[in-house]
Amino acid sequence: MKLTLLFGGASYEHEISIVSAITIKEKLEKFDLTFIFCDSEHTFYLIDAQDMKATTFSRGEYKKMPKLTLSQGGFVQKTFFSSIKHSGTVLSLIHGGDGEDGTIAALLDFFHINYIGPRVDACVFSYDKTYTKYLCYAKNIKTLEYEVLYLDEHKDIKIEYPLIIKPARLGSSIGVSIVRDESGLDYALDTAFEFDRSVLVEPFIEGVKEYNLAGFIANGELHYSIVEEPQKNEFLDFEKKYMDFARSEQVLKAEISEQLIAKLKTNFEKIYTGLFEGALIRCDFFVIDDEVYLNEINPIPGSMANYLFEDFPACIELLDSSLPRNKRAKVSYEYIHSISRAKGK
Amino acid sequence: MKLTLLFGGASYEHEISIVSAITIKEKLEKFDLTFIFCDSEHTFYLIDAQDMKATTFSRGEYKKMPKLTLSQGGFVQKTFFSSIKHSGTVLSLIHGGDGEDGTIAALLDFFHINYIGPRVDACVFSYDKTYTKYLCYAKNIKTLEYEVLYLDEHKDIKIEYPLIIKPARLGSSIGVSIVRDESGLDYALDTAFEFDRSVLVEPFIEGVKEYNLAGFIANGELHYSIVEEPQKNEFLDFEKKYMDFARSEQVLKAEISEQLIAKLKTNFEKIYTGLFEGALIRCDFFVIDDEVYLNEINPIPGSMANYLFEDFPACIELLDSSLPRNKRAKVSYEYIHSISRAKGK
Repeated sequence: MKLTLLFGGASYEHEISIVSAITIKEKLEKFDLTFIFCDSEHTFYLIDAQDMKATTFSRGEYKKMPKLTLSQGGFVQKTFFSSIKHSGTVLSLIHGGDGEDGTIAALLDFFHINYIGPRVDACVFSYDKTYTKYLCYAKNIKTLEYEVLYLDEHKDIKIEYPLIIKPARLGSSIGVSIVRDESGLDYALDTAFEFDRSVLVEPFIEGVKEYNLAGFIANGELHYSIVEEPQKNEFLDFEKKYMDFARSEQVLKAEISEQLIAKLKTNFEKIYTGLFEGALIRCDFFVIDDEVYLNEINPIPGSMANYLFEDFPACIELLDSSLPRNKRAKVSYEYIHSISRAKGK
Repeated sequence: MKLTLLFGGASYEHEISIVSAITIKEKLEKFDLTFIFCDSEHTFYLIDAQDMKATTFSRGEYKKMPKLTLSQGGFVQKTFFSSIKHSGTVLSLIHGGDGEDGTIAALLDFFHINYIGPRVDACVFSYDKTYTKYLCYAKNIKTLEYEVLYLDEHKDIKIEYPLIIKPARLGSSIGVSIVRDESGLDYALDTAFEFDRSVLVEPFIEGVKEYNLAGFIANGELHYSIVEEPQKNEFLDFEKKYMDFARSEQVLKAEISEQLIAKLKTNFEKIYTGLFEGALIRCDFFVIDDEVYLNEINPIPGSMANYLFEDFPACIELLDSSLPRNKRAKVSYEYIHSISRAKGK
């Protein structure tokens, strides 16, 4: 199977994307892989397999590698006399802004490039945590109560301490703080507003049970990962999550009842169906008093949550075999013709 | 003021976009205008002002005109020895798919091109009528009750006849039917499903009062159009709406109370703020028993609803002066460096 790993992007999660790509390369080594890096200037580079190491990017060595441009059906590499088109299915590994906000999805759609990853609307509903709340309400999925604060707005928070403060649109715990009382609030808000102009406030529940479940639909069927109970130290901060993106060892199943697993799956299915087709996503849930609450949707989880699947390459093959195809609208000039006729032109 | 009109696109509203661009050209003739056409193959062409007539497109004459490609900061025209970059603010006039589904917005964002038009998330919430319902709920705005049907799904409709059936994601009344009793249902559903895989069902309210209001935020302030009571013949079908896109004569204000105008504006503001900045949108409302209901958001209204504004060119100048700027994420290699150091590499 031919596959292009697309990674990098102009986002706070740029480094994380590089780590993800390096990890996935190992997991999918049996495939015929191409590597395309998007730098912070939004220039695409073709990276040789042997150069897929962190220092290629951190030292700027990638700049010596062939540049690519987007073209209908693929990425084009200009050579002296001609050009080569790299046209296989793209696996989008651009986390955070660019990748998860819908930009890359729209780009690939526009240029008719097949890709494994969330479509534009799926990105919008998972990237902004406020919109995830809208989705949960519409799909009848429980979430924690919340308030949204905007930059330069003065509003009293009604939720009781302790609180968790998050920039509305960043992943990987960047800019997130736990606030135990009023004294810590201003600093936490300032930190969050450095990354976004809107901020989500939720109650922080000490010791809440957390479970992660990944999955995807292929050939009309839902394929689930094992359920993982992530290790936690209050909450995973950026550095810990960062290491998480390099994970490739399969983890152990959470020791929970079949009944709870079924509940988690039901919630996953409600979120995924009709919106996330084409993507492998991970949903992070809370369980409180035996009830399942959605915490977050990761539309492009770190290293695609490979460690939650028994046979990750098989998952990618399955996904590739049933990607959503955009029905292309037929363009006609029927009305213009009829008007022209009416005008006698 | 320099401005690039971008129009066309691969959508059912391709022709409508051409009509919009021709109309806007007349209204903005005092500006220094550039015309860029996106054909159904997603190729961009530079169109000379004198060729801005319907037959240039319907007869395929545009194919002889210079091709453009997207590049950081603008559209590039390759000449024999060098290249010219067209880099002014873009006014996006691509209606329907491509323009209103977020694709064009994402493309312009990715290539750092300033534009007047809805951003990606604004598109997602207005293009799919189901997501508009989610937004209304979250923002506490009344809408008609609704049900969503999916292709190949068998579900009884609970809403009472007469019904209005709409493809979830098309504008300009394409694929929309009114169904008075069960005998017309299958045909109406088949028609709608030709255009989309999900369909919205709402009650059809005979003779309901309809009011349209357009507006935008510039320099922190909301600027409203007059309120229009659209003429209707049951509902505007495609052909009638099509003619609507060519409108350039200012219309008369609806004769309604100041109180109702204020209510419409309050609803408009709730929808617009925090989501539609950068765009001039038109909201179509119903008024039932003195209560305002949102019917539809037009994130790129036909000919930008110029006929609702007294001084349309001034609106465009205002918008251009306060477009949202994307804060560009700083990319660092801090973590990769620290890991490399820890490994002694």
